[in-house]
Amino acid sequence: MVKKRFFPYRRRNNPLQYSSLNDFTKTYKKLLEEQLKQSIDQLSAPSIIKDAMAYSLSAGGKRIRPLLLFATMHAFGEDPKKGILPATALEMIHTYSLIHDDLPSMDDDDLRRGIPTNHKVYGEAIAILAGDGLLTYSFQLLTKMQKEFNGETIVKAIEILSQAAGPEGMVGGQVADMEGEEKKLSQEELEYIHIHKTGKLLIASVLLGAVLSKGNQKQLQQLTNFAQHLGLAFQIRDDILDLEGDEELIGKRVGSDSYNHKSTYPALLTMDGAKKELDTHINKAKAILSELSLDTGILEAITDLVANRVS
Amino acid sequence: MVKKRFFPYRRRNNPLQYSSLNDFTKTYKKLLEEQLKQSIDQLSAPSIIKDAMAYSLSAGGKRIRPLLLFATMHAFGEDPKKGILPATALEMIHTYSLIHDDLPSMDDDDLRRGIPTNHKVYGEAIAILAGDGLLTYSFQLLTKMQKEFNGETIVKAIEILSQAAGPEGMVGGQVADMEGEEKKLSQEELEYIHIHKTGKLLIASVLLGAVLSKGNQKQLQQLTNFAQHLGLAFQIRDDILDLEGDEELIGKRVGSDSYNHKSTYPALLTMDGAKKELDTHINKAKAILSELSLDTGILEAITDLVANRVS
Repeated sequence: MVKKRFFPYRRRNNPLQYSSLNDFTKTYKKLLEEQLKQSIDQLSAPSIIKDAMAYSLSAGGKRIRPLLLFATMHAFGEDPKKGILPATALEMIHTYSLIHDDLPSMDDDDLRRGIPTNHKVYGEAIAILAGDGLLTYSFQLLTKMQKEFNGETIVKAIEILSQAAGPEGMVGGQVADMEGEEKKLSQEELEYIHIHKTGKLLIASVLLGAVLSKGNQKQLQQLTNFAQHLGLAFQIRDDILDLEGDEELIGKRVGSDSYNHKSTYPALLTMDGAKKELDTHINKAKAILSELSLDTGILEAITDLVANRVS
Repeated sequence: MVKKRFFPYRRRNNPLQYSSLNDFTKTYKKLLEEQLKQSIDQLSAPSIIKDAMAYSLSAGGKRIRPLLLFATMHAFGEDPKKGILPATALEMIHTYSLIHDDLPSMDDDDLRRGIPTNHKVYGEAIAILAGDGLLTYSFQLLTKMQKEFNGETIVKAIEILSQAAGPEGMVGGQVADMEGEEKKLSQEELEYIHIHKTGKLLIASVLLGAVLSKGNQKQLQQLTNFAQHLGLAFQIRDDILDLEGDEELIGKRVGSDSYNHKSTYPALLTMDGAKKELDTHINKAKAILSELSLDTGILEAITDLVANRVS
């Protein structure tokens, strides 16, 4: 549960007021989930692939990437609704990465978010194609923003997203993660993996929000730094939950990372050290937010949520 | 071997003159292969994924999609070199689709173009990620055309490519193909598969060339029709080669489609019927070209090549 709170950084002229992160989250998760459903419904494609794509998209999750995009647009005083298509694209890319990561030849997971993984339901071939379809469709969706944004802005958005998701981002991180299995990694190597495997797409979420709100170069740089700390905090919390979490809440076996011989922050730094490292990143992330003269209350609340999340 | 020939439709003011398809092909295949290599080299990513991507990209092939794009730009009197990045993107998307199609859970092929398939060399996980990486990177490359084209044109190009490659195009066709295995398909069902699985990306190749050359709506429609006939001809020729081809030239076992219980045109229409159907599509494709007041000589030569190809 997130405690209701008021935000000290709210700008007086921001047209959109939310009394708590809960209200914001509820509003935009609903919007996102409707758009996810509608985006699949309107596809002219064999029903089995639409079903497989929709299955993993509707399996829930925190929707942290879309929320970061919406919260960043809100921070600039923009209407977050204008970001619905890139938010949908972000969630599709995240979901495709989970489907492919879970495959037998990768992490070989049977459960994700407490329900059978895509390939357990639809078979490996359709799961691979559902991932391919989600990835490709996410770029198609970005081209449909021409009423709200000009061509240059859309191209910039596609550049950010493709770089974050591709070989220089998430795909590269997944490769490094697989190569690092069974090895004892240094903190630097572990950070390389996390910055690429999860960090780049979190950074892209914030950057997309900023670019769609016409943020300047300095703001883009500060928000990139913010998101990098947030991303590492997110991953350290993940590692802590893997050892201390509630199986029902996290939807997978506690200890499964160490079972799979993955390097983790608690293994590298001890549990106390990992918790200190988490605090350090959270504090740095918040310090950057407080330097921005934007309405960063909701971004700050998301940061608190990442620090304290139990699933 | 392609016979050298001169083109009746060459416009007098076209600055780029080629005495034969061979010259054109040689020039632009070289340009493409250099760009493919350079695009991978410049990636900041783990070397294993760069190697895996480069392995399948450099395995050769006819490069028919890039050549169609270059030839279409040439038909409009545009410098084909301006299309090098979308041509590279097309070849990357085609190559990703081959890597994923060859996987054990899909067609389970050990050989492609006479050499071991990607997963036989790099393992299944890296092969899946190499495909994911090529697909994502292809969209990133399209965002790098901002010196040559404006934002709206680039967005249009990304729209064409993502729709052709995604669930409404190639991915949907692959799903329909898998679902159609072990079934006796009607000609209509077989055409649905081929129009989506291979046709849409061939159409996109021609459309991209036309859009980058500022073709008008009528020209886009005519070129779409042309490419649809060309795509079906390509597939029928494929089916014929699967039964009558030279194993060394086609790089796979003769009869492997019927061995895999795939529906084919010769099975549906008899070999003679399939050859007549091939002629019909080739003639329709050429009739459309002759209606266009463009310099379509090279497109016509490519059409002849598709009709008569032996590999």
